[in-house]
Formats: sequence, structure tokens, C-alpha cells
Amino acid sequence: MTVSMYKISVPIFVQYLTSLSAVLDKAAAHCEAKKIDPAASLNARLYPDMYPFSRQVRAASDHAVNTTARLAGAEPPALPNADSSFTELKDRLAKAIDFVKGFKAAQIDGTEDKAIKITFPSGATREFTGQSLLLNNALPNFYLHCTTAYDILRHNGVELGKRDFMGTPVT
Amino acid sequence: MTVSMYKISVPIFVQYLTSLSAVLDKAAAHCEAKKIDPAASLNARLYPDMYPFSRQVRAASDHAVNTTARLAGAEPPALPNADSSFTELKDRLAKAIDFVKGFKAAQIDGTEDKAIKITFPSGATREFTGQSLLLNNALPNFYLHCTTAYDILRHNGVELGKRDFMGTPVT
Repeated sequence: MTVSMYKISVPIFVQYLTSLSAVLDKAAAHCEAKKIDPAASLNARLYPDMYPFSRQVRAASDHAVNTTARLAGAEPPALPNADSSFTELKDRLAKAIDFVKGFKAAQIDGTEDKAIKITFPSGATREFTGQSLLLNNALPNFYLHCTTAYDILRHNGVELGKRDFMGTPVT
Repeated sequence: MTVSMYKISVPIFVQYLTSLSAVLDKAAAHCEAKKIDPAASLNARLYPDMYPFSRQVRAASDHAVNTTARLAGAEPPALPNADSSFTELKDRLAKAIDFVKGFKAAQIDGTEDKAIKITFPSGATREFTGQSLLLNNALPNFYLHCTTAYDILRHNGVELGKRDFMGTPVT
């Protein structure tokens, strides 16, 4: 049972997007109980030049969806960019999870050396192999955004623990 | 060039512990320039029941050292727990990096199914395979603590960007 490109991507993305969705439920319940405007949490940041919570969630789901699509050579779905409510963000996560879950191991495995060229919104391009994209770009960024989303909520007093961050491994 | 237990652990741990060490230099320079007591940064937390910065750094290095030791069946070094200065934390990181770097691929590869039992300070035990330890415990926790250390400094006004977090891939 050797590790593979599939094992280190799809189940990981699904696990942490699912735990993030459950964390959104707790954040929504917290706002409800404390009579806090949800927008205050959705727009909360740790520093003025950092992404707000909603954008951290969007970035995490984008990395999961775009990376699996690029590895498998599939077209990523256009995920909704509306993020003015916890419900809208949960909808985005649900669509991302559905998409990522849809890949079979055979579509992702063996893509270590696949040439992947990414054109950024600025027009700049960067060339990866499947392995360098996943290990050196997608996974660190995915964890960075998942963690920072969690950190923002902790910082804002939502009662969460590490178990909420970790969720349940996908088998 | 398939991915392997070594490729998804040693170079990743080394990359992010190294970038964390460089981030410590920037934090120390920030404190120096702004005449901030380093203890204020070392003890900063995002919420009262979260680890302070120094403990986030310690946790990240512990995960890297203990996990590679357990996978390879080696004895982990006793890392210094002094963390009252940036210099002491950098010393801890340097020792952790040296230890993790010392493993060769042959010592870590093929450990997917290795039975690993961990006894926690509470006395509770948990059983893992090499793969479940690395993918479902060590890597998520490692990224969680590295990111939160970075987030704490950003929140405290240290001028850092994502490149500081990412560092340089280890080849």
C-alpha cells in the first residue's frame, strides 16, 4: 500500500474541506447565539493586508479544485464567488468537495512528472510538474488557508479546538 | 519518479522549518527596530487558550523530528525547550533541521504499513500506520503550527508575505 499522488491529495482535500464546512456551522451558531452580525466574522482578518475569513475559505477550495483538475486533466467547475453568508460559503465548499471526491485514483496517480503550466491573473506563467505543483504549491497553500481560516475564527472567540480543524480522515 | 514516504516528509519538513527560521530573523529585526521586547512576540497568542508563538515553533519542530524518527525507527534527539529568545528558538530549529536532513530515502521509504504506537504524556496511546501517522497526523499538525506561528507574527505587525512562509523547496 504505497503512498501515491491520489492518496496525498484527494482524501486530504476532502477531509479538510469537510472539517472547514463543519467549522462554518459552528461559526454561524456562534454569531446567532451572541447576536453577532455574520459579516463581522466573514470579513474578519488577522491584519489589514491579509485575506479576510471568507477569502481564506475561497482560496482553500480553489487550491483543492484546481489542483485535482490540473493533475487529472479535467475542467474545473466554476465555483460561486458569492461569500456574503455562511450558507453561500458552505455551498461553495459542498461543490468543491463533490468535484474533488469524483476523481478516481487512476486519474490522479502517476501524474508526478506531468508538465503543468499555470497562467496567473497577472499574465505571469509558472511551470510545474504534477509533483512540484502538489507538494510545493497546492498542499502548503491549502493548509495555509485552512489554518488561517480556523485561526481567524479562534481569534474572534468562536469555540473551536484542534479536533474541529482536523475533522475525520477519509478512507 | 513516484512520490514516496520520504519525498512527502523530509524535504517538506526541512523546507518549512528553514523558512520558519528565516521568519524568526525577521521577527527579531522587527522587535529591534521598533524597540519591542522580544518576549511580547514570543508570548503572543491569537486567543488566550491557544499556544503562544514560541510553543507553535516548538510543536512544529517536534512533529518533524518525532515523525521522521518514528518512521525510520531512530531515537529522536532531546531538543532544547528553552524558548525565551529568538536565538534559542533558532537553535532548536537548527537542531531539528539537522536531524531530519540526516535521513536517507531508504530509511523512510516503504514505511507506509509500519505499526507505530504513540504514548501521549497523558498515558493514552494511539496506534498508527506509518502512512496514517504522516498523512493524517504529522503533516496537518506541522502545517497548522507553522501557519499559526506565521499568523501570530503577521497579526503582530511583522512585515511578512507568503514567500516568507513558503521558503524554497528542497531538492
